[in-house]
Amino acid sequence: MATATNSDASNKNAATSTISRNIGTSKEIKSAIPREREKMLKWNGWGYNDSKFAVTNDFMIYFSGDRYPIGNLILPYFKQWVQQIFNLDFTSRRVPKPMPTVYPDPILCDAFMNDISGQILYSIKGIDRLIRSHGQTLYEIHNLREGIIKRIPDVVVWPKSHDDVVKIVNAANSRNVTIIPFGGGTSVSGSVTCPQNEKRSIVALDTSQMNRMLWLDRPNMTACFEAGIIGQDLERELKAIGLTVGHEPDSYEFSSLGGWVATRASGMKKNVYGNIEDLVVQLKMVTTKGVLERKCLAPRLSCGPDFNQIILGSEGTLGVVTEVVLKVSKMPTVRAYGSLIFPYFDCGVKCLREVAARKCQPSSIRLIDNDQFKFGQALKPKATFFSSVIEGMKKAYITKLKGFDLNKMCVATLLFEGDDKDVKRQQKLINEIAEKYGGIPAGAVNGERGYVLTFVIAYIRDLALEFYIVAESFETSVPWDKCAQLCRNTKLSVSKECEKLGVKYYLISCRVTQTYDAGACVYFYFGFNYYEIKDPVETYEHIESVARTEILLNGGSISHHHGVGKLRSRWYPQSVSDVGVKLYKSAKQELDPKNIFAAGNLLPDSTDEHIHVHKPQSKL
Amino acid sequence: MATATNSDASNKNAATSTISRNIGTSKEIKSAIPREREKMLKWNGWGYNDSKFAVTNDFMIYFSGDRYPIGNLILPYFKQWVQQIFNLDFTSRRVPKPMPTVYPDPILCDAFMNDISGQILYSIKGIDRLIRSHGQTLYEIHNLREGIIKRIPDVVVWPKSHDDVVKIVNAANSRNVTIIPFGGGTSVSGSVTCPQNEKRSIVALDTSQMNRMLWLDRPNMTACFEAGIIGQDLERELKAIGLTVGHEPDSYEFSSLGGWVATRASGMKKNVYGNIEDLVVQLKMVTTKGVLERKCLAPRLSCGPDFNQIILGSEGTLGVVTEVVLKVSKMPTVRAYGSLIFPYFDCGVKCLREVAARKCQPSSIRLIDNDQFKFGQALKPKATFFSSVIEGMKKAYITKLKGFDLNKMCVATLLFEGDDKDVKRQQKLINEIAEKYGGIPAGAVNGERGYVLTFVIAYIRDLALEFYIVAESFETSVPWDKCAQLCRNTKLSVSKECEKLGVKYYLISCRVTQTYDAGACVYFYFGFNYYEIKDPVETYEHIESVARTEILLNGGSISHHHGVGKLRSRWYPQSVSDVGVKLYKSAKQELDPKNIFAAGNLLPDSTDEHIHVHKPQSKL
Repeated sequence: MATATNSDASNKNAATSTISRNIGTSKEIKSAIPREREKMLKWNGWGYNDSKFAVTNDFMIYFSGDRYPIGNLILPYFKQWVQQIFNLDFTSRRVPKPMPTVYPDPILCDAFMNDISGQILYSIKGIDRLIRSHGQTLYEIHNLREGIIKRIPDVVVWPKSHDDVVKIVNAANSRNVTIIPFGGGTSVSGSVTCPQNEKRSIVALDTSQMNRMLWLDRPNMTACFEAGIIGQDLERELKAIGLTVGHEPDSYEFSSLGGWVATRASGMKKNVYGNIEDLVVQLKMVTTKGVLERKCLAPRLSCGPDFNQIILGSEGTLGVVTEVVLKVSKMPTVRAYGSLIFPYFDCGVKCLREVAARKCQPSSIRLIDNDQFKFGQALKPKATFFSSVIEGMKKAYITKLKGFDLNKMCVATLLFEGDDKDVKRQQKLINEIAEKYGGIPAGAVNGERGYVLTFVIAYIRDLALEFYIVAESFETSVPWDKCAQLCRNTKLSVSKECEKLGVKYYLISCRVTQTYDAGACVYFYFGFNYYEIKDPVETYEHIESVARTEILLNGGSISHHHGVGKLRSRWYPQSVSDVGVKLYKSAKQELDPKNIFAAGNLLPDSTDEHIHVHKPQSKL
Repeated sequence: MATATNSDASNKNAATSTISRNIGTSKEIKSAIPREREKMLKWNGWGYNDSKFAVTNDFMIYFSGDRYPIGNLILPYFKQWVQQIFNLDFTSRRVPKPMPTVYPDPILCDAFMNDISGQILYSIKGIDRLIRSHGQTLYEIHNLREGIIKRIPDVVVWPKSHDDVVKIVNAANSRNVTIIPFGGGTSVSGSVTCPQNEKRSIVALDTSQMNRMLWLDRPNMTACFEAGIIGQDLERELKAIGLTVGHEPDSYEFSSLGGWVATRASGMKKNVYGNIEDLVVQLKMVTTKGVLERKCLAPRLSCGPDFNQIILGSEGTLGVVTEVVLKVSKMPTVRAYGSLIFPYFDCGVKCLREVAARKCQPSSIRLIDNDQFKFGQALKPKATFFSSVIEGMKKAYITKLKGFDLNKMCVATLLFEGDDKDVKRQQKLINEIAEKYGGIPAGAVNGERGYVLTFVIAYIRDLALEFYIVAESFETSVPWDKCAQLCRNTKLSVSKECEKLGVKYYLISCRVTQTYDAGACVYFYFGFNYYEIKDPVETYEHIESVARTEILLNGGSISHHHGVGKLRSRWYPQSVSDVGVKLYKSAKQELDPKNIFAAGNLLPDSTDEHIHVHKPQSKL
């Protein structure tokens, strides 16, 4: 029940329990993920324990389990592809270390433990702390697999409500204990990594048990959720009553609402539903100085600076997001996929640009480059390499009659949502625009495959690491006119750097994943065979850093939706200007003068050691 | 030319001259309004000197000049309407005082004057200072007409570029001189009123001469303007090359881009083009600590808190907005008007709600209540009272066959933009939805009239004041389910307060002007005959204050688009929470520690006298 307890009248934070809306009672939601995450999720990799890419005795690759459409199917072409691209040697395996049995002793603050004891569920067990010490950044997963344990949280706490968070934050602030908010653990910016030099007790504040739907307001089509709810739970509950929020970042099975807010997440269907900042109607964040919230549920205000936009993107450094009012929509009646092939990547970019300019974007439109196109083909369970991509056309028709070069063509995948009439109209219009740029419709099956693979792709790295391949994605946003050039130049700079460092076998590919009036989001995938490389993670990070510098030079941003975290903090000052840095520091100083929320994200911390680079035991 | 002068290398503000984009040269724009505003605009009222409501010798009302479609036409029904509603006595006139000849001596800071002398155009002439001492809030215009001059700016400066603003701000900061940015002078929140107790020199920084288009970027459909450009200049220049920004607040003939940003403006066509925060790609604000700007033109970023959203709504208290990159769109090929009549206001609200829920809003959709409907009819130049509203139907058909009550029915006006097919589809859909709520199409003419009147309505108050009527509008935003109730309750509370205070003849009416997924904007018009009231402005402000309290009680916001200014600052703290106030104060302290930008907006200033209430010489 979301009742206002107000148990501590003298407590400046204890004013109201929930964003008030007198609509029914709150709904408990049973999460698909248990509180003891490791029972269902990998402790040292991505996703479900029962779902992974694996290799048979005769070196065929398959995906295990039946959670995903490609589950339990041999992927006959994948082996050939990885061998060709990465020169992968199936006989040489890097086996991950087992789950540790010994953990660093926790640094405990007795007064704080006393404050929360009996009130807040907590744990100081090593495994509980370890699995909340990291997100999914390459160095984090690599460390886990290599058995390297650095500074990890000392205590895990599981608040069950906004009021619990208030208690924890007040106790931490008065006892000088630090807090790192932990949502779904899918960060790829190092944002939940502990500051390595932190001598105070570090509390991982796990929001997972704070995941109710506090109210649903049908007349206004809004709903208030506690920030710990994860995407799949939120959408499942809403779907059961014919509704959707429509926010689908690639991590949405596991990532949390609070995490979406804290990092400014973007979903693949943002064209219809908006990004997280468009979906949020109201926010509540617990700070050491009290609760920051706008006291009005009206849709749009002119009331000074918008502090919701300070909460959005704050990356856990200013407080804990506890409750979020989101817009909800009716489930669309029709969902249809589509795809287009283009002779060259640049044609595809031009097509996407016009689709955006004419404001007729379907729910999702993505453009994958030739390398990713081939990669997608390599993940097909059966049939010939090209049978499905041309669907209804002959391979000969595309490559011979139309003159497409199989090593240059690329594919756009499309997702349409709406009613039947709308979808048909959209499809017709998109095909017309595509034709202007040499695009040819390539069927719904390829489109659907593209979106299905979205959720599986994150699993590949765990297999890769097992065969001496490090890999990671990184993204940016860029004005339209610089999009194709940024893609080319970034790939080129990665290739040059690989050559310079003796990285022989690598893949650098990209896709345009989101389109806007004035530009687009570009996602890069980069991985290489590190069998002969001494410091794979350091090397990877160095090359990614070269790529980021190139991206910025080409007019790209520091991040479109992953956030800054610790991984990209060195570029934060130049991105927001000196005055922006001062403004951030003043907000931090005001809301958290003791640096309790010590995540160390956004601003580069010169006093902290370079946390994520280590010298793993190289094979050489 | 927008060249980087960097004349003062040690100057922390002097880094870059313009938001960089290597696209052609900047374009000088000749504004429709001269620098000496009073040559074209009323010094003590709204709009153009040659345009006003006036009364003939036989007490017929007309609108002068030919700038607007109702110009130079007798409005035969208007007289009857004002007599009926306001008990207006045409024989009793309150003649405004003439332009003053004596002004307060300016408080000058010699060092500051020396700093800017020869570099920045300035004036200390009384009239220049007076006409930049106010916006269009009732008390401001009333004071001017009554010959009451309070604290006015001491110096007017006209920077011609970002670099000029940097010079002025740095000089002011080092000399402890205060600045009030002045754009189009259309504020209705008291935001440009001088703090009455300010002893330091006050500089009105008039942005009007800083109005170039610095660049146009067609591939990305963005353009960079200097912040002083006013709406009509901006749209005229873009229209000439087939483009539009599409931002049309009711003040757009006179209000400036910088003002739109500083107040979070909203335009009537926001459904297609977005509000100002949706149109802005990049912003530049000069503060005493340097220039705040995001260093990237990418359309969307995940880069910590969004400081553009601190600039938006800052109301001149943190710095001067100098350059703005906006999205531009192609001019629509078709523009069509429409209207719907509903038997009751609530039916209309329900219709607008469904239109928003189905995300099929036309460019503009507005719902006016019965009083405003009648008011609109009263402004018709000719023909019978109802001839045009029913357009193609008989009055008998609506009132008899359909049973509409002429004293309860209300009207929605519609504006469609797009290509022919889109517009036709939208019209069909809107009519279908309207039918569900008892709505009947009432033709394009009534729709067009509604939008035409938009720009004329602001002129009425000047005539009203001449006949002992004070009037003003105020607005709010509210969740959908509370919309109709808020309208009813606010009107009721105004009526009750009028009764209590002996205000006998008044009008309180409203319209829904903007629709969103989760709620709407409501605009109230309130005016009364003050012939027998001692302190008309004080009385007006008291009643508006009662109305605002009622609005907040009914779930409405402090403001949808007018902003907070000084008029609504008493409700700011409760709107943004204590932590919000702290956050604002910390930003202010960081960016402007000497309180140079001393506008005194947003936060109630307990040390300042209640600036806008005065005791005018009452007629009684």
